[in-house]
Amino acid sequence: MATQNTAPKQTKVPNPVITLTTDYGTNDHLVGTMKGVILKINPDVTIVDITHNVTAYDLLDGALTIGSAYSYFPPKTVHVVVVDPGVGTERRPLLVSAQNQYFIAPDNGVLSVIFEREDNVVVRHANVEHYYLSPVSKTFHGRDIFAPVAAWLTKGWQTPSMGDEITDYKKFAMPKPKAADGSLKGVVLRVDAFGNLITNFRAENIPESAQKNGHFQLQIGTHVVKKLVDTFARGAAGEPIAYVGSSGYIEIGVNKGSAAKTLALGRGTPVVLPEK
Amino acid sequence: MATQNTAPKQTKVPNPVITLTTDYGTNDHLVGTMKGVILKINPDVTIVDITHNVTAYDLLDGALTIGSAYSYFPPKTVHVVVVDPGVGTERRPLLVSAQNQYFIAPDNGVLSVIFEREDNVVVRHANVEHYYLSPVSKTFHGRDIFAPVAAWLTKGWQTPSMGDEITDYKKFAMPKPKAADGSLKGVVLRVDAFGNLITNFRAENIPESAQKNGHFQLQIGTHVVKKLVDTFARGAAGEPIAYVGSSGYIEIGVNKGSAAKTLALGRGTPVVLPEK
Amino acid sequence: MATQNTAPKQTKVPNPVITLTTDYGTNDHLVGTMKGVILKINPDVTIVDITHNVTAYDLLDGALTIGSAYSYFPPKTVHVVVVDPGVGTERRPLLVSAQNQYFIAPDNGVLSVIFEREDNVVVRHANVEHYYLSPVSKTFHGRDIFAPVAAWLTKGWQTPSMGDEITDYKKFAMPKPKAADGSLKGVVLRVDAFGNLITNFRAENIPESAQKNGHFQLQIGTHVVKKLVDTFARGAAGEPIAYVGSSGYIEIGVNKGSAAKTLALGRGTPVVLPEK
Repeated sequence: MATQNTAPKQTKVPNPVITLTTDYGTNDHLVGTMKGVILKINPDVTIVDITHNVTAYDLLDGALTIGSAYSYFPPKTVHVVVVDPGVGTERRPLLVSAQNQYFIAPDNGVLSVIFEREDNVVVRHANVEHYYLSPVSKTFHGRDIFAPVAAWLTKGWQTPSMGDEITDYKKFAMPKPKAADGSLKGVVLRVDAFGNLITNFRAENIPESAQKNGHFQLQIGTHVVKKLVDTFARGAAGEPIAYVGSSGYIEIGVNKGSAAKTLALGRGTPVVLPEK
Repeated sequence: MATQNTAPKQTKVPNPVITLTTDYGTNDHLVGTMKGVILKINPDVTIVDITHNVTAYDLLDGALTIGSAYSYFPPKTVHVVVVDPGVGTERRPLLVSAQNQYFIAPDNGVLSVIFEREDNVVVRHANVEHYYLSPVSKTFHGRDIFAPVAAWLTKGWQTPSMGDEITDYKKFAMPKPKAADGSLKGVVLRVDAFGNLITNFRAENIPESAQKNGHFQLQIGTHVVKKLVDTFARGAAGEPIAYVGSSGYIEIGVNKGSAAKTLALGRGTPVVLPEK
Repeated sequence: MATQNTAPKQTKVPNPVITLTTDYGTNDHLVGTMKGVILKINPDVTIVDITHNVTAYDLLDGALTIGSAYSYFPPKTVHVVVVDPGVGTERRPLLVSAQNQYFIAPDNGVLSVIFEREDNVVVRHANVEHYYLSPVSKTFHGRDIFAPVAAWLTKGWQTPSMGDEITDYKKFAMPKPKAADGSLKGVVLRVDAFGNLITNFRAENIPESAQKNGHFQLQIGTHVVKKLVDTFARGAAGEPIAYVGSSGYIEIGVNKGSAAKTLALGRGTPVVLPEK
């Protein structure tokens, strides 16, 4: 398999990009310090924050976040994802080469969306300590391992020298809708900044009947949403409406309002669609 | 009219800057994804966040924010302003060329401060879909229209090829103080991060008598502020004081405290000054 | 003393970095505007946010934040630290040259950690108004003084021309543990984003007995923490544990939880260790 990942001669990329996705928040020095580490190794890197407000320790939230963003970045972008409840324990740091992008993260499943969507990934245990800061703390691997490994990667793009390939990395199944009793049962995956409730239904789960005659019906908790629109701006004030969001999932929103507050519902709420 | 905007030959700016002002918040992938889109089109761009915490759907807050910041940026900076309650509907995306800067935003009035302050703006309907991502979602035009149009603008600076000039764009009047009964009646426009109450009075509204003999009196809600100082640090602990803030508006603050909390007042509170 | 700071010939650094640490928050235009000012003067600068959520007006929090981050940045990084309750008064703006880094801040002690750790600092009163914006507001020196002085510094690195050397700058003593009655009495310096309680004890304050036989005992408020681990991930659910954090301080944390919430304790809480 001769992919770009193993091509030994390309050692200079003109405008390397590293993205950061963490649950560190932005109230202290952590994120800034990671950026210092990166720039000290490679001052040519452009660093982009995806978000630092992943729900603390929440691997699913981290996986959904990077999964929604990564494909919009330039080829050879290096995505660092640090949601790391096991920091300082035996869990391994990973360096993942996908077709067009790289991912650096703890081996805890936070890259599950990537593993689900990308073919031919090469996963390495980034165990070459030459690329770590020294000493390595037990509690801040974002600074001491993930940031420097990402920065060194953008210097030489020599993944084989940075760790041994492995196949037993952790991956969890993303929650999928389940058919039962003529219904499709799903769940609210997350609530976005506007209070929209993002379900795990996708456009293809909308029953044909809704497409044809507009007879739509989505149950969320004990509420029933009957209006399927193309954008939340089509809703009347205070009215919960369904639409296909920008990441391809069906969302429940309220025009100029918060569906989460209006319905008093949140992550984990069951949602039900007729099966066809 | 031979402005820089239409000069056809300048196709390379050495250090292009794009700023982002949105109400997206920073809890999910939205802002990071927009940056990926920009860098994929033009990796030489420096991206600056103005803020992503504009009050959700609040066009006035968005207008005041970009109005306070834009003039401090380098010539030819491209300012992307996305406060967009009508996303996915008929409202048009705009590309505005001012004397020294560019603005990209929905046509909903969020650029009203720019239209008020800048002469000779050229406003275009950014309707050339060649510069959009494809497909265009109905709910995330920040990613699919505004970011890529901004990035393509920094590649060629060819605004005429990016949309038709229009004159019927939306603009709302910024709230101005009104004279009545020997008084000047204004309003609190916004509350800043320190809890300072920013009014729509400006330095020139301070009565001459206050300048001469220090007899100052500003009514805010049911309170009266009698101390006009040059900086909030001049106030005694807990004492509400008035001063001219850094954007030229009269503000009410409390030294090392929050005027909004101390007075229990916020945006929209009426303020009154003697007329002279 | 011929340090880099006074070397007159090095006028070009290939990739200058300016960091920003403030208590401005990220809800309005303040930080974005500072970045515009910097890029207008030197478009080659890479700007890094350390944090803008230093507790408002809190000099100790600001000092600890920059103290935890600065040493991880490239040589000749310029650190701008604006926690500035005295803005617009007589307090002076400082330009500090340390061995490898520069610091620009108000003269109010917010650089105390730097003064404590760095030898041979040269401190200047950045009083050359040629490097300020004009006019200078009374309330936003971040924009009008600190940002432009930092940007001009990265153009020429000529600190002697930017202000007179002074020695009477402000510095406060960082709170140190005190020995009394066979105990070492310390304090919680701050609470981080995960709710970990960061004390002013350091690794060397851990009694020898704890190192040898694991008999550890740290009193925090009225609670006693008996488990000393290498990383917070070693704690059982809900169990407060102690460990040496990434900045070298002993911290109290709860695995996948918040020690601050679990114990209902915060900054300023007394902590006690046996003296040996």
